[in-house]
Amino acid sequence: MKVTTLCYLERDGKYLMMHRISKKNDVNEGKWIGVGGHLEKGECPEECLYREVTEETGLHLTAHRFRGLISFFSEGYEDECICLYTSDSFEGDWEHLPVCGEGKLEWVKKEKIKELNLWEGDEIFLRLLMEDAPFFSLKLCYKGDDLTDALLDGKPLDGTRA
Amino acid sequence: MKVTTLCYLERDGKYLMMHRISKKNDVNEGKWIGVGGHLEKGECPEECLYREVTEETGLHLTAHRFRGLISFFSEGYEDECICLYTSDSFEGDWEHLPVCGEGKLEWVKKEKIKELNLWEGDEIFLRLLMEDAPFFSLKLCYKGDDLTDALLDGKPLDGTRA
Repeated sequence: MKVTTLCYLERDGKYLMMHRISKKNDVNEGKWIGVGGHLEKGECPEECLYREVTEETGLHLTAHRFRGLISFFSEGYEDECICLYTSDSFEGDWEHLPVCGEGKLEWVKKEKIKELNLWEGDEIFLRLLMEDAPFFSLKLCYKGDDLTDALLDGKPLDGTRA
Repeated sequence: MKVTTLCYLERDGKYLMMHRISKKNDVNEGKWIGVGGHLEKGECPEECLYREVTEETGLHLTAHRFRGLISFFSEGYEDECICLYTSDSFEGDWEHLPVCGEGKLEWVKKEKIKELNLWEGDEIFLRLLMEDAPFFSLKLCYKGDDLTDALLDGKPLDGTRA
């Protein structure tokens, strides 16, 4: 299982979204997601988070919130354990973001995000983030683009919390 | 990086501890730790947690708290991402615990736990658990039995939180 980080930077009611249109053989091709990436050898999730945010956006985090853990399963791709963060504390030129090798960066109003091409399960955790839910663990299973199974804190998502 | 679960069951001011004396080539040999184990293919951490607790103790969790994530690095062993839980909600015969293939189970008063043979870093997260700290991410690096580096939420542990 690979461990990765995923971060939604916040500013003025917007999240920084990346439109994944640049990388070859990308499980996220065409989708809009946050920034982040793979843990390098010896890194803990926060070391990876701070490095990846700077590499992809040129911005430097000064604080973060660890919001949840996502277990991602999709046929043909390695199982993934995604550490999910948000941050509204960062330094740098947030108005002029660099061209990134993985996609195009854009600040998107939170209420407009569901109109983007998202992973179906991302709508679940983005809602939990916007509702300021306490730390959660979300399992998402896909066949291609279809979400086939989802558990929140170990319970089927038809339950009361979501 | 392998992903595992680690759980401290609570009852009457005690934690259920396992003395790891049964398993060959065990990174935890001789140490006292909680129960838990490796995620099987397709499992999310909570599915693993509930399965492992039942396999090792015969008890059935009815609720859990996800308390933190530990990034564990030790030369000669695979890097490990440990999902840390506690639970005071379980069913079964907690007074007569089975003999487990990985070690000997024993309910230990919380104030006596630091007298056991623990990993040095376990004292850090056990203190955070007992202080009811909010969700934390702890990086622990070892050389043999010596803790050589520790970060709490991405910051060196000499900081203000621990």
